[in-house]
Amino acid sequence: MKKQDCTKISRKEMAATLTLLQQKAIAAKLPVIVLFEGFSTAGKGAAISSLILNFDPRGFDVYTTRVPEKHEKRKPWLARFAQNMPAYGRFAIFDRAWYSGMTQIQHNIKKPGRWQSYLEDINTFERQLHDDGYLILKFFLRISKKEQEKRIKKLLSNKNTAWRVSQNDLKNLKHFKEIDMFYREMLAVTDRPYAKWHEIDAKSRKNVRYCVYNTVVYALEQALKEREVKKSSSESFVPQKPYINIRYRMNPTQKIKDADLTLHMEREQYDQQLRILQRKLSGLHNSIYRKNIPVILCFEGNDAAGKGGAIKRLARALDPRGYTVCPTGAPTPEERSHQFLWRFWNKIPKSGHITIFDRTWYGRVLVEHVESLTPKDRILQAYNEINEFEYMLHEWGALVLKFWLAIDKDEQLLRFEERQNIPEKQWKITDEDWRNREKWDAYAAAVDTMLEYTDSEFAPWTVVEANCKLHARIKVLDTVARALERVCF
Amino acid sequence: MKKQDCTKISRKEMAATLTLLQQKAIAAKLPVIVLFEGFSTAGKGAAISSLILNFDPRGFDVYTTRVPEKHEKRKPWLARFAQNMPAYGRFAIFDRAWYSGMTQIQHNIKKPGRWQSYLEDINTFERQLHDDGYLILKFFLRISKKEQEKRIKKLLSNKNTAWRVSQNDLKNLKHFKEIDMFYREMLAVTDRPYAKWHEIDAKSRKNVRYCVYNTVVYALEQALKEREVKKSSSESFVPQKPYINIRYRMNPTQKIKDADLTLHMEREQYDQQLRILQRKLSGLHNSIYRKNIPVILCFEGNDAAGKGGAIKRLARALDPRGYTVCPTGAPTPEERSHQFLWRFWNKIPKSGHITIFDRTWYGRVLVEHVESLTPKDRILQAYNEINEFEYMLHEWGALVLKFWLAIDKDEQLLRFEERQNIPEKQWKITDEDWRNREKWDAYAAAVDTMLEYTDSEFAPWTVVEANCKLHARIKVLDTVARALERVCF
Repeated sequence: MKKQDCTKISRKEMAATLTLLQQKAIAAKLPVIVLFEGFSTAGKGAAISSLILNFDPRGFDVYTTRVPEKHEKRKPWLARFAQNMPAYGRFAIFDRAWYSGMTQIQHNIKKPGRWQSYLEDINTFERQLHDDGYLILKFFLRISKKEQEKRIKKLLSNKNTAWRVSQNDLKNLKHFKEIDMFYREMLAVTDRPYAKWHEIDAKSRKNVRYCVYNTVVYALEQALKEREVKKSSSESFVPQKPYINIRYRMNPTQKIKDADLTLHMEREQYDQQLRILQRKLSGLHNSIYRKNIPVILCFEGNDAAGKGGAIKRLARALDPRGYTVCPTGAPTPEERSHQFLWRFWNKIPKSGHITIFDRTWYGRVLVEHVESLTPKDRILQAYNEINEFEYMLHEWGALVLKFWLAIDKDEQLLRFEERQNIPEKQWKITDEDWRNREKWDAYAAAVDTMLEYTDSEFAPWTVVEANCKLHARIKVLDTVARALERVCF
Repeated sequence: MKKQDCTKISRKEMAATLTLLQQKAIAAKLPVIVLFEGFSTAGKGAAISSLILNFDPRGFDVYTTRVPEKHEKRKPWLARFAQNMPAYGRFAIFDRAWYSGMTQIQHNIKKPGRWQSYLEDINTFERQLHDDGYLILKFFLRISKKEQEKRIKKLLSNKNTAWRVSQNDLKNLKHFKEIDMFYREMLAVTDRPYAKWHEIDAKSRKNVRYCVYNTVVYALEQALKEREVKKSSSESFVPQKPYINIRYRMNPTQKIKDADLTLHMEREQYDQQLRILQRKLSGLHNSIYRKNIPVILCFEGNDAAGKGGAIKRLARALDPRGYTVCPTGAPTPEERSHQFLWRFWNKIPKSGHITIFDRTWYGRVLVEHVESLTPKDRILQAYNEINEFEYMLHEWGALVLKFWLAIDKDEQLLRFEERQNIPEKQWKITDEDWRNREKWDAYAAAVDTMLEYTDSEFAPWTVVEANCKLHARIKVLDTVARALERVCF
């Protein structure tokens, strides 16, 4: 009975309901991911067609996942998907997604247990999106071996459709049972309350259409209602301190006030050391290029602590074709319409290259925290999200180093005044710098919290005593050189 | 004497001069492109290294041009360069650029005269950038065959550097003379006053360093001075009407007032026609996919003319994996910091795909014109720039169709009121729509000018009488279907 009722909904009715829900999702800024996986010829394309019929075409994008190209293989495997995440209020529909993406790189798997690690990546990725407010709908279209064989034969029998059948489809038909087992395991591991799998018997196209329709309508209504409730509830439960995945090992906690800011270096020694280190770094850059190691160097610090100067000395030692400096400012409107790490996913270096970040994703737990630009509960989640992101980079094979350049309040005042008084340096100082300075203590506390929860073994922080610029630069270059030596030899 | 003086400038002095000029360029929002071409082993990398030593690393990007990947080959050949154009106030430095890019696709050349067409593309591309305020510096590093042989042998003799020599380098050494002739011709054709070639004898690295330094300093100073002069001069010469390249053939001029807005279609006929056309389009979409033809469909029209509805009916006939709908809003700050076509270069479909633009680059000559958002002289240049852009798309093999959906003032009022009165439609109407309506006549004049100067044979405009939505939709679908048939069969 129930089945009959459901399939009796007219197309007109479906269209009207979905159109309205899409408008509501736009108004509520709800981002929606709908992905289709399943056996080939199961009818993913048809399912997508009938779903999007009902949407305003200006509000969604459709992505097809194909075998990654060379440039995509030189990035973390999830990067090509991460950059296609829809902005708040938009829909992204995937014809095959990261699940197929995972199988497309299987020939690169050397380590045992690599599958498990990919599945974990997926669970982390989807959970982060969910925590950011994304609605994730996952459909798996299932047909029997007999049905698949019938469909492939039908396609092959007509010269207008034969090209749609690939060698891979024929090969997979032979391995139907193994593939089925593989899928079942994959689905079991990645079926989460916030990203459920909806398995559909795809023998009947009509059944697919109505199952997809019903699931999408139900999930959208539910998600919109939850938003309403959350908005109207006066307060949500905010934990006292950040949760960090217990598997991530942190280094012993450093405190900013323990940094010995009297550390100092003479010009003569500096010149000599700089020459030696730059020569060394130049050679090491060559090695990481040849060994295909991606390197990510992160710079944070007090205003006027000398990040720019340190980056300049570092960059001079490198081949300009092998590194990029990414200055990070306030996010653009488009960047603000995505999870906070989205804009950095796009800037990860390809393997063998170096990216130097002049300010980073730590803006989330520094300025956004101190200035209350982001709700407290999201800030508290950010520490773990950042660790997960950096762990993913580490697992991929990247060297990740993070530098905090520390100066004291007096030294900052000296430098601000110098900048203000020397015409060529005036562009470096803004009213905002002065305003930040008034919040010195709040920033110092935020830095300590940051060091406590993100100084991991796989992406360590180096506190650089920067009252003396020469000492600071040498410490940065020396730390980078030592770390590169460790990964190169 | 002169040579000696020049090479006596100390590195410190060079650094100070260039650092200051970079700051001035940032302040003046001057975008700068510096590209290096030349024989392999001529020292392009070293030249770039010594140049950028002097720049703040946060203000420039370095790009290396390699053989295009699969996804790049499915776009217009200049697209991969166009998207790397620096924002206003930034520097982009290219280790090989579109000149090498041109040679990297030579194996795809079937038509005779294709080289000439590429060189023309380059001249158009560089002139458009210049007209938009870009400073373009082109260096060609020249060495003799003997010197090249010596350098290659030296690299091969050391196992740490041997990997830098490719098979291509050895092959090219044999063809030194031919390649030299080819380069000379290429340089001659593309040496323009606004984008001069600077040929440098690259036997001595020191000579390269100082020639590059002197040229860059001279050109930057000149460009900054020109900006000053332009800013302070009360008025610049603005021509009376747009210049259009005489080679572009335009269709006979249409006027908006000549459109017969009484054209009408009954629901019954509409339903029947829609079914037939959608089936036809579905088959044609398949054909263009298999024939690898890119299709670009542009929609413009009065507010409330029914663009969204027409796009929806069109999209429903297509396979969702083969098309994208691009809504075009006001440019983002990043988009405003580039030439106006830049944001569209990134949205050109890959071959075999369809992009449907809901509003387009014609915003330049419509809203930016009527609202005076852009200086008059740049608007006047835009007509030709747009024709050049569309001609490039056409030459690449794209089908480009443009639709103007026309309604009259009374019909618009009816639709505005309907939108305001029906709750589900209220999101469609904004105060801006009412403000635009007050400028009806100015917009109508702008549309006529647009039709006069951009209704080309290679990218024609179709004026769609849209007082009756049903008539309009069928006309759009029918026009697309006929055009697809022409290119498919």
